[in-house]
Amino acid sequence: MTASLLEQLIDALRVLPGVGHKSAQRMAYHLLERQRDGGRRLAATLEAAMERVGHCRRCRDFSEAEVCAICASPARDIHLLCVVETPADRLAIEQATGYRGLYFVLQGRLSPLDGIGPAELGLDLLAQRLQEGEVRELIVATNPTVEGEATAHYLAQLARARGVRPSRLAHGVPLGGELEYVDRGTLSHAFGSRSEMQE
Amino acid sequence: MTASLLEQLIDALRVLPGVGHKSAQRMAYHLLERQRDGGRRLAATLEAAMERVGHCRRCRDFSEAEVCAICASPARDIHLLCVVETPADRLAIEQATGYRGLYFVLQGRLSPLDGIGPAELGLDLLAQRLQEGEVRELIVATNPTVEGEATAHYLAQLARARGVRPSRLAHGVPLGGELEYVDRGTLSHAFGSRSEMQE
Repeated sequence: MTASLLEQLIDALRVLPGVGHKSAQRMAYHLLERQRDGGRRLAATLEAAMERVGHCRRCRDFSEAEVCAICASPARDIHLLCVVETPADRLAIEQATGYRGLYFVLQGRLSPLDGIGPAELGLDLLAQRLQEGEVRELIVATNPTVEGEATAHYLAQLARARGVRPSRLAHGVPLGGELEYVDRGTLSHAFGSRSEMQE
Repeated sequence: MTASLLEQLIDALRVLPGVGHKSAQRMAYHLLERQRDGGRRLAATLEAAMERVGHCRRCRDFSEAEVCAICASPARDIHLLCVVETPADRLAIEQATGYRGLYFVLQGRLSPLDGIGPAELGLDLLAQRLQEGEVRELIVATNPTVEGEATAHYLAQLARARGVRPSRLAHGVPLGGELEYVDRGTLSHAFGSRSEMQE
């Protein structure tokens, strides 16, 4: 009814995940009322990112350059390769752990029903890399879901066939968690995988 | 560590209300992975809106044109003027009610401690408009907060001094609400303002 540009903005904001009509409206009003400069900066950055952020040729993570900063770094251990499903998983591991090896980002998981097979995940690229002989351990860090487990199984076979040792993140009760609130599957797994306490 | 443009995007997204680092990260990844076109459209619309959306000369609501669509419409009743605090309030009334009069958007409320007085709310413009003699009823739809009530009181005096009848939205128990969950102030007000039931 009023400014059509305002309506267009509200509509365009709904492309963001978790943002419905009401939130988009609040965002548009907020920017127009109090954050014009921030809004302009967001517009410019967004345009640049959509145009220029591509994928690293080595690890398939997001990167402006042809090879990303981690893959290009001489300080990383080239004998360790950690496979994750998404760039967000890569970031989580990088921020939480002291891991200094390299990564490979699948940008998905094996899901035959959705038409996602080895080719879509760049597994030919990964196989070729394992063939080169530099990688000694393939750390499989896919999610503990049905599809993630299937992907992990596939990756382990891929590694073993090329003489690379596959490993998997430990599963069990989260630190600081209470047994009462841990889901059954995790608790059952943790119970079965119990280890002897050292003195 | 990786793409600095990605980090810039995550940072720029935090200008949106209610969006922290984690949400901004999720939004950036979502756009890059699945919504490049939507992201581009958002960038373009955002830039255009930040540059071109100004305020209506008549009612102070957001508008691309000098006079907004509602103020310019010959179908609206020029004898009714509804005063609201924000454009979002105006939109809420427009969407929920069958009101066909005009609006005046304060873009705030009287708040002496924050340096917001009559001048900041365009009340000189409103006084001049009431002086013109077209408006017969001033519908005061400020929020039922302490500052909103003070603003309403000021507006009512402004109207009466110019022979315009001020009115106020009804306050009471919301439709569909349960008395048990209504706050004390509202319930007390609703009880005191009870009206006789008609046969």
